[in-house]
Amino acid sequence: MSTKLPDIKTNFSDWYNDVVYQAEVVDHSPVRGTMVIRPYGYSMWENIVKILDAKIKATGHQNASFPLFIPESFLKKEAQHVEGFAPELAVVTHAGGKELEEPLVVRPTSETIIHYMFARWIKSYRDLPMKINQWANVVRWEMRTRPFLRTSEFFWQEGHTAHETLKEAEQEVMLMLNEYVDLAQNYLAIPVITGQKSESEKFAGADKTFTFEGIMQDGKALQMGTSHLISRNFARAFEMKYQTRDGALEYPYLTSWGATTRLIGAMIMTHIVPILVGDKKQTVLDASQEIARILGTEIRLFVDTDEQKTPGAKFYQWELKGVPLRIEVGPRDLENNQIILVTRLGEKITLSRQDLSVSTVHEILETIQQELFARADERLISNWHQGEKLSQFGPIMKEANGAYQTGWCLGAACEAQLKEYQATVRCLLPDKTFAQCFGCNQRSEGDIIVAKAY
Amino acid sequence: MSTKLPDIKTNFSDWYNDVVYQAEVVDHSPVRGTMVIRPYGYSMWENIVKILDAKIKATGHQNASFPLFIPESFLKKEAQHVEGFAPELAVVTHAGGKELEEPLVVRPTSETIIHYMFARWIKSYRDLPMKINQWANVVRWEMRTRPFLRTSEFFWQEGHTAHETLKEAEQEVMLMLNEYVDLAQNYLAIPVITGQKSESEKFAGADKTFTFEGIMQDGKALQMGTSHLISRNFARAFEMKYQTRDGALEYPYLTSWGATTRLIGAMIMTHIVPILVGDKKQTVLDASQEIARILGTEIRLFVDTDEQKTPGAKFYQWELKGVPLRIEVGPRDLENNQIILVTRLGEKITLSRQDLSVSTVHEILETIQQELFARADERLISNWHQGEKLSQFGPIMKEANGAYQTGWCLGAACEAQLKEYQATVRCLLPDKTFAQCFGCNQRSEGDIIVAKAY
Repeated sequence: MSTKLPDIKTNFSDWYNDVVYQAEVVDHSPVRGTMVIRPYGYSMWENIVKILDAKIKATGHQNASFPLFIPESFLKKEAQHVEGFAPELAVVTHAGGKELEEPLVVRPTSETIIHYMFARWIKSYRDLPMKINQWANVVRWEMRTRPFLRTSEFFWQEGHTAHETLKEAEQEVMLMLNEYVDLAQNYLAIPVITGQKSESEKFAGADKTFTFEGIMQDGKALQMGTSHLISRNFARAFEMKYQTRDGALEYPYLTSWGATTRLIGAMIMTHIVPILVGDKKQTVLDASQEIARILGTEIRLFVDTDEQKTPGAKFYQWELKGVPLRIEVGPRDLENNQIILVTRLGEKITLSRQDLSVSTVHEILETIQQELFARADERLISNWHQGEKLSQFGPIMKEANGAYQTGWCLGAACEAQLKEYQATVRCLLPDKTFAQCFGCNQRSEGDIIVAKAY
Repeated sequence: MSTKLPDIKTNFSDWYNDVVYQAEVVDHSPVRGTMVIRPYGYSMWENIVKILDAKIKATGHQNASFPLFIPESFLKKEAQHVEGFAPELAVVTHAGGKELEEPLVVRPTSETIIHYMFARWIKSYRDLPMKINQWANVVRWEMRTRPFLRTSEFFWQEGHTAHETLKEAEQEVMLMLNEYVDLAQNYLAIPVITGQKSESEKFAGADKTFTFEGIMQDGKALQMGTSHLISRNFARAFEMKYQTRDGALEYPYLTSWGATTRLIGAMIMTHIVPILVGDKKQTVLDASQEIARILGTEIRLFVDTDEQKTPGAKFYQWELKGVPLRIEVGPRDLENNQIILVTRLGEKITLSRQDLSVSTVHEILETIQQELFARADERLISNWHQGEKLSQFGPIMKEANGAYQTGWCLGAACEAQLKEYQATVRCLLPDKTFAQCFGCNQRSEGDIIVAKAY
């Protein structure tokens, strides 16, 4: 049942929680912190998978699959890694009616088990680069969950690669970060900020983590995915030695990178804004089916023939779901040999029936896509502020959110000051426009983005 | 490293175990009973998913996703169901550093959690039929495992539907069974026997289970997938009541159906037979790339440019992997303006270079596909015997395997006699050609297939 949504402007968080349920994207699960993804939401994931999987393959990676369960001892092989993930683990202690000799962890991420296999597979420089990707479910036990943004079980892809040189590994990290940014900006129409994570925010066991972050409509940052240069400790822990071109034994350089079902949450937060319209004419079935025949081979469409709902209720439901284009087919329009298209941006286009073609609709969809990105980009820019000192911008950010570009000395003490404002260093930028650190009077080592985050 | 394979004729079981590792389809996993599926094996699964997913959608089902974890109490709601699955469950008892109040079972199948959601979603006859499918990993703790055929974790799709009438539900069960048979026979080129499972072999909680079974090269049966008419006890257990067209409250009729990564095992057991050939000429790179350009848009191909391997080693590796067609490009052939194609059936085709086109290769592949099916079908027929009495065919089957069509009184006592021969009732057939039961002197109620199984 649809009930009135909370106001998106004053209560974005409640609005999001309501819209994902009312638009039938997810439903409440009986298992704490997990999601039931309904067909409409799952089709969003299928579309993201299709685009991203093609990118992953086009850049020379191969899909494979590794076990859901990881022996507890594997996680302990890399000290930082287990420290980072220990509080979030779900553990299988019994199986087949018996207590297990060694508990099995439900994978929170698969570095350890994949590196164990890499050590078997990488014997010579001829086996490098090794570029593997896995589409999988992972489990991280979270206390406070929110559909797509933070759930105990989520879906993702995790790429894992091994290289001969540091330079190659670094290129891989940036290559995949750029593929993610292309996905976000040019397919999901979500403008993002990219940069490096601070020491305290990087992946447990990485030397460097790069992130792409969206700024949501309420000005809070959302980490949408990450690409890591993995610490060589992993290679050492798993004795991943190979024979180099010179005949020496060496550890390879490792990367990993992942993007998750969180992207669906980002898309909804960025783009799904219901527009309410009034009562309209009755759907005319035959004409609708004819239109579906013309467009259906190339354009994903749904003919809503539900006779139980008023046109108004249908419009509401589909606007709630965020469909980009609604084609209205009513008796009066048919008499006049015309068809009305309403875009999700509220624009109304009247076409004569013979002008409706795949190419016309493609053109309109392309315009909508560009306009969606432009609007989101405007919002990003309007939420992207400059701030010299935390004492100045901190109180404003605490009230009104927003992303603040500022300078940083890279000191942990200054970073810790952000906690008071519920903010974190979202990423380090390549720019250097501030002379001083936001927190102390020391020299800034480079610009960063500070924001509250999901 | 490739080592000599066991003889397929005398030691099929060892041959299979070796070939899946040597062909780099899977690798040994450090987690008991689970698999590491390598890129070559995973691409087989991706291709199966693509075909089957299209079939599932074309028959009006929608994909969705449900939690990996199921509360233990859910499984207990249907008595037969929990009895059937209890010995195979993996149980999460600790998460987020604490002992859970209620243990969570890692799903062995998702009837219980999906029916819980169905009960929320199905309120009126207008919500029916409900036709949902999930692609997922499931866990069943197995004592004796074998790659793809029996593993503790495996991948599958599980369809779950609800209907107003028994007739509709029965039609759904047969519809999806037929889609599976089409997948097996017309895509995987595996001939199958279809029929109903006996009471003792049916799914825990089903009224009726239908199966499609392949007969492997050693004459043992392999259950490749099943389609169930689910007991209405599930609807009752989850209070899945809806308002009928007459305004009454009623339970819907349920089905479920699944096919798994076991299909990969079936394909390998049926088709991958290495053919050894001698030394051949050196690959000529440019010409190979030119051929790849011509064919690559429509045909999946791999140009093996590895200079470390002799042509003979390459041939061996790719024959091991079971590729249908090898295109040999050597200097002498190029001089003569010709190209040699070797099919996996051992046939050699010489073409002039300008005759090599997408359509020529498609034609050859189509012929290979038909020939593979024909050979497997011949094997099925030669393994498919008639037997009047177990006392006669039992000892032969015990030694030589094979599928025996016979009559059955449907009595459990006669079925139990099969144990002595390590055999089971694989399925009930629609035929009735035997007057008496295989075990006793009572009237046969219909024909069945008896075989040893994987």
